[in-house]
Amino acid sequence: MDSPQFRQAAHAAIDQSDNGQSSTTTTTSAPPGYLRELIPPGIPEDGESWENIQRDIEAKIMPGLTHWQSPNFLAFFPANSSYPGILGDLYSGAFTCAAFNWQCSPAVTELETIVLDNVARLINLPEEYHSAGEGGGVIQGTASEAIVVAVVAARDRAIAQSKEIWATQNLTEDEIEDRVCTLRGKLVALGSDQAHSSTKKAAMIAGIRFQTISTVMGEYSLTGAQVTHKLEDLHARGLVPFYLTTTLGTTPTCATDDFASISTALLAYHTAHPTAPKIWTHVDAAYAGAALILPEYQHIPLLFPSFADSFDFNMHKWLLTNFDCSCMYVRRRRDLTDALSITPAYLRNEYSDSGLVTDYRDWQVPLGRRFRSLKAWFVTRSYGVQGLRAHVRKALDGAAAFTQLVRADTVRFELVAEPAFALNVVRVRPPPGVVGQLEGGEAGAGFARRCNEVTKKVADRVNKEGKIFITPTVLGHGEESITAIRVVGAAPGVQVADLENAFRIISETVDAVWAEETAVEEATVELQAV
Amino acid sequence: MDSPQFRQAAHAAIDQSDNGQSSTTTTTSAPPGYLRELIPPGIPEDGESWENIQRDIEAKIMPGLTHWQSPNFLAFFPANSSYPGILGDLYSGAFTCAAFNWQCSPAVTELETIVLDNVARLINLPEEYHSAGEGGGVIQGTASEAIVVAVVAARDRAIAQSKEIWATQNLTEDEIEDRVCTLRGKLVALGSDQAHSSTKKAAMIAGIRFQTISTVMGEYSLTGAQVTHKLEDLHARGLVPFYLTTTLGTTPTCATDDFASISTALLAYHTAHPTAPKIWTHVDAAYAGAALILPEYQHIPLLFPSFADSFDFNMHKWLLTNFDCSCMYVRRRRDLTDALSITPAYLRNEYSDSGLVTDYRDWQVPLGRRFRSLKAWFVTRSYGVQGLRAHVRKALDGAAAFTQLVRADTVRFELVAEPAFALNVVRVRPPPGVVGQLEGGEAGAGFARRCNEVTKKVADRVNKEGKIFITPTVLGHGEESITAIRVVGAAPGVQVADLENAFRIISETVDAVWAEETAVEEATVELQAV
Repeated sequence: MDSPQFRQAAHAAIDQSDNGQSSTTTTTSAPPGYLRELIPPGIPEDGESWENIQRDIEAKIMPGLTHWQSPNFLAFFPANSSYPGILGDLYSGAFTCAAFNWQCSPAVTELETIVLDNVARLINLPEEYHSAGEGGGVIQGTASEAIVVAVVAARDRAIAQSKEIWATQNLTEDEIEDRVCTLRGKLVALGSDQAHSSTKKAAMIAGIRFQTISTVMGEYSLTGAQVTHKLEDLHARGLVPFYLTTTLGTTPTCATDDFASISTALLAYHTAHPTAPKIWTHVDAAYAGAALILPEYQHIPLLFPSFADSFDFNMHKWLLTNFDCSCMYVRRRRDLTDALSITPAYLRNEYSDSGLVTDYRDWQVPLGRRFRSLKAWFVTRSYGVQGLRAHVRKALDGAAAFTQLVRADTVRFELVAEPAFALNVVRVRPPPGVVGQLEGGEAGAGFARRCNEVTKKVADRVNKEGKIFITPTVLGHGEESITAIRVVGAAPGVQVADLENAFRIISETVDAVWAEETAVEEATVELQAV
Repeated sequence: MDSPQFRQAAHAAIDQSDNGQSSTTTTTSAPPGYLRELIPPGIPEDGESWENIQRDIEAKIMPGLTHWQSPNFLAFFPANSSYPGILGDLYSGAFTCAAFNWQCSPAVTELETIVLDNVARLINLPEEYHSAGEGGGVIQGTASEAIVVAVVAARDRAIAQSKEIWATQNLTEDEIEDRVCTLRGKLVALGSDQAHSSTKKAAMIAGIRFQTISTVMGEYSLTGAQVTHKLEDLHARGLVPFYLTTTLGTTPTCATDDFASISTALLAYHTAHPTAPKIWTHVDAAYAGAALILPEYQHIPLLFPSFADSFDFNMHKWLLTNFDCSCMYVRRRRDLTDALSITPAYLRNEYSDSGLVTDYRDWQVPLGRRFRSLKAWFVTRSYGVQGLRAHVRKALDGAAAFTQLVRADTVRFELVAEPAFALNVVRVRPPPGVVGQLEGGEAGAGFARRCNEVTKKVADRVNKEGKIFITPTVLGHGEESITAIRVVGAAPGVQVADLENAFRIISETVDAVWAEETAVEEATVELQAV
């Protein structure tokens, strides 16, 4: 491919990418293995023309894509794309390098520090987490990587704290090593039963135990009392809690943990057990953190310095920055570099040695890095504070309209959690005729079971029809579990009308499922009568 | 930014990115902190025009970039960019999603499997590592992430193997838990002193010990005898080796470990100690793996099935695919998913449950993923097998010319390692007049010390002048250490003439440094005479 061919191909790609921003289709009907049928194996001996390749993108790749930018994409959490976001990745590609240290390309490191300080101010994150002091921010690929980094740093800090105590106790090196091994086996990372599963995965990677703290069904937010109970229970059993993921906007229901009471609980625990390792508390705001740009949420981060060692939110979810751009902040960057820094000869240079520059590789799992701050810089400057706020508000407005429709339709629906951060979580009621016949009525286990069955059927059918894309989820476990539908519309183009349309589609599907249920019910009754 | 503005801005970015491909400048003179001086803090209240932003890219960002695509970039290892590679990332941005499972966008998962099987055939990786059997490939961000994944999977496999044995021994659950803790404390991950430092970092992340195996100075490749010695020594001391990084093309000198004898050594160890956990052996071919596309190297991977559980190489180094695209292959994908899979309710779906689809999140550290296989697909199709081979050969030819010039200039230079995979590692000799005056002549410690001093001065001055960019490195430790200059030219546009030019620049710098050294020397002699 020569230069004119590249420019032509790139311009066509730009046009296609622009058209994609306004697509309203969302799911794909491609069955598992569809692509293997379409693409012959192997690499051609001689290069192919771009026309061939481009034809395949349209004919073979695009039919297998889910369109996350569609206003009808209401599943999972969003993965916003935007014009300045795309441009950021375009320049990042043009400036390709493997920026594993400052010297690799000074602009990559320096812009990241500047942009993350700006974003910290945008979400009202206190000075403790800015780069001017002992803290600072770093762009991770995903919120799950941020949690791995936090868990590993927390584990090493906990061990280091215990070692400091043992150092005063006249132990041999072997005895200390032995105690470290025993301690590792007792360390417990914690998260509520609503926290993202990536805390469990991070604990697996770090090679330590993980336990959940149960929240109350219907509330779903972790409280200080629950934390205290778990910490004291573990301590009494000789185990050593050292890490806790708290959440601002949980994945199942967007619940927010009770930071104030958790902060008090942690303080009380450490006062009662002064030699226990300090518990590293992480605030996972992967999705909902974007809402902190709105004045009405800006009191929340003011609490963080009283308990939070680290905080993370994804600009690539609800803040118009193409995947991936996860902004992680720590109160003490030394905690990260103590756990993750190694500097062999071929990575040494006068700049890193001088301590004047940041080598972000020591703040993350991988060595190499891309120039991800460019897209965050373009997005924040292009939209400005007001433009970003307007985008976040639009999703909140759509969700509020959806909530209102659900609340008005008590025959079909029930909200299973308080709507928050543009997420509605609803379950579908059984056909009205059926409810009266169930043992115990609405209070009985039969009713709950029927709700779960009907909700699952509705969710599956809505997704199969593919006009909109929603996520079925399960809250709680066993007999008490609740099957529900998550609806969150926060794509850049989403409007109130799109959420109203989604409500209509779901309602119609409920009617269709009900009709079938009732027909089966009647057939069964008739059969039993015969 | 509206659609026409976006198209205009994107087209300008394309032009800029095209121009960047032919730039010959490489280093930047930006001092630490340069960007903070240029960019006012904060995000504007209202959005800015793209003109403003674009002006800043040129005026503030570009002066702080190191140009990795320049033919004068001879440092580290390359990070190739290419037209089809840039297009791949452009489409990936256009199709933005967070593809953490198959359902998120089926094409993302399916193309990755197809492309990695194609690449496996391209580098002659045996069937054991293809997806049709029990193995398969996955795109990681970096070779260092691949090593983290391998170490974690290896650790969990080692523990599982021991647990299986303990399960037959009538132990209580507490006793088994206790043994697991003890075992964790004894597990040792291994790599040679030439293996990349990311094995040590991976061990830190996984929370287990790391030890190096020493190679012989001047040879730098790990042998079976060295492996046997280390394994038996650890075993005798009650420690449990469970993982080994072997290298095809080490970072300091591009040495390749002796796979055949290592394979024999591992077999002998397991025969002698049948209950010891099976040692997971990883082949790290991060840079040099690209050379496996050439027929003359294709016998190498045929050895892998006899010992290698995993293999990784970066298409983003020497194979024209923009950073990041690290191709990792395993012999048994279950080993990865056993260690990294968790599936909460909101990630469950009929496709994943059916086992018909691959959820690559269970093969890696992060949850979300980008559509990275697109660029590898574009690159392999656009260049074809012959085009890729021609690119790799061009770097080998340039390096061979450089080697010849070094070998011909025995007054100024010495090769400190056998040139391999387009990498030359040389040291600079002291001024000829000085050598005779040193105690012990060329065999003495004084000579080696002077070589190190002169080499460091030459490397620093070459980089400060900035016409070319090279990496100084240190081989070995303490008294025996050798300071050397690494020269590797494998940018897409590099030609034999560029390496000849680099040799000329380095030679001229040697002359300048020699002249200064001699002047100082003479002044000292005169001073002593007075």
